[in-house]
Amino acid sequence: MCQSQNAHPQPAAPAPHACGCSTHGSRPEVGRRVPEAHDMDYPEVPFPTARVLATAGAASLRKLVFRHHERLRQSEIGHLFAMDDTQFAKLVGHIADYVVETCGGPQKFTEERGAGCMRTRHFPFTIDERGREVWMENLFHAMEETGFPLELREEYWTWLEAMSIRMINRRTTKAQPVRIDWADANARYRETVAA
Amino acid sequence: MCQSQNAHPQPAAPAPHACGCSTHGSRPEVGRRVPEAHDMDYPEVPFPTARVLATAGAASLRKLVFRHHERLRQSEIGHLFAMDDTQFAKLVGHIADYVVETCGGPQKFTEERGAGCMRTRHFPFTIDERGREVWMENLFHAMEETGFPLELREEYWTWLEAMSIRMINRRTTKAQPVRIDWADANARYRETVAA
Repeated sequence: MCQSQNAHPQPAAPAPHACGCSTHGSRPEVGRRVPEAHDMDYPEVPFPTARVLATAGAASLRKLVFRHHERLRQSEIGHLFAMDDTQFAKLVGHIADYVVETCGGPQKFTEERGAGCMRTRHFPFTIDERGREVWMENLFHAMEETGFPLELREEYWTWLEAMSIRMINRRTTKAQPVRIDWADANARYRETVAA
Repeated sequence: MCQSQNAHPQPAAPAPHACGCSTHGSRPEVGRRVPEAHDMDYPEVPFPTARVLATAGAASLRKLVFRHHERLRQSEIGHLFAMDDTQFAKLVGHIADYVVETCGGPQKFTEERGAGCMRTRHFPFTIDERGREVWMENLFHAMEETGFPLELREEYWTWLEAMSIRMINRRTTKAQPVRIDWADANARYRETVAA
């Protein structure tokens, strides 16, 4: 484990940290070759099926996107949405267009904004692992607060839980981003929903 | 290709961009499953062999590290080293300790600072693909300027060209970080070396 082995740390001792490296604590061999590897794993992304739009309707999806982003703007990642109200409403409208189109609705986003390319569109904004978790938590609460159809919540969540990992562009740890399946989300977030 | 196909861009047209996505330009299927993938590939890292320290000696390695970092401090990534001269000298001394130890010298870095864990140590500092290229270019010039032994330059470069990819923690593109082998480095940088 990547923890300091020093039971009596001196003032000058390095801070313990969890690094995940394979050679931590032993002297690496001179001339070693560290094998190929890769950064974050991206899980499969299951996009929403046609039943989401058929059941919820476009208005419910739009309401969800707007509530989600109203919450985000007040959250610790609110700086990513630091813009005037008109710009903010326009941005969120585009996101709602993307969601509705992705669920099988009109191609308004593509016609007005071009191909989705969500990872590329997010590169200008610094998104770390914690930022993604904040985004997900606020999605959970927005589903509650807007009364998003109960029978669709797991499917909708599962799409964005996976897809949001691909929006992370600032790593702060070697650990893989945390997975939060629907059961985990309920266990984590339900008790903190406003009554 | 992820370029706009619009030959007569309108003011409201989305900016063309290169995203590398597989579905760009066609309407994605509702309910599709985008397969697993991963972020950056990390190539094998060939650490320096014992001949580097045996041939160059610790003083030459330290001189190289100091010159490299003097250059970096004046470069477009100089903000990463924005500290007073005493702190800067101390930092660069630690880096030189790491290099000498990695090449088979005394375990001064490990004793004073703990295990290498270079990726983890760099997380607090935002390093993007461009920052890595600046770092590499300045290493090339520092080898020239300090007269680092000619017969060691390719080996030393090849280690750090591969290892530096693992220091990138802010992605700004879906493209893999550029590989710059020793021949490429000479072609790119030699003409810009001060006479």
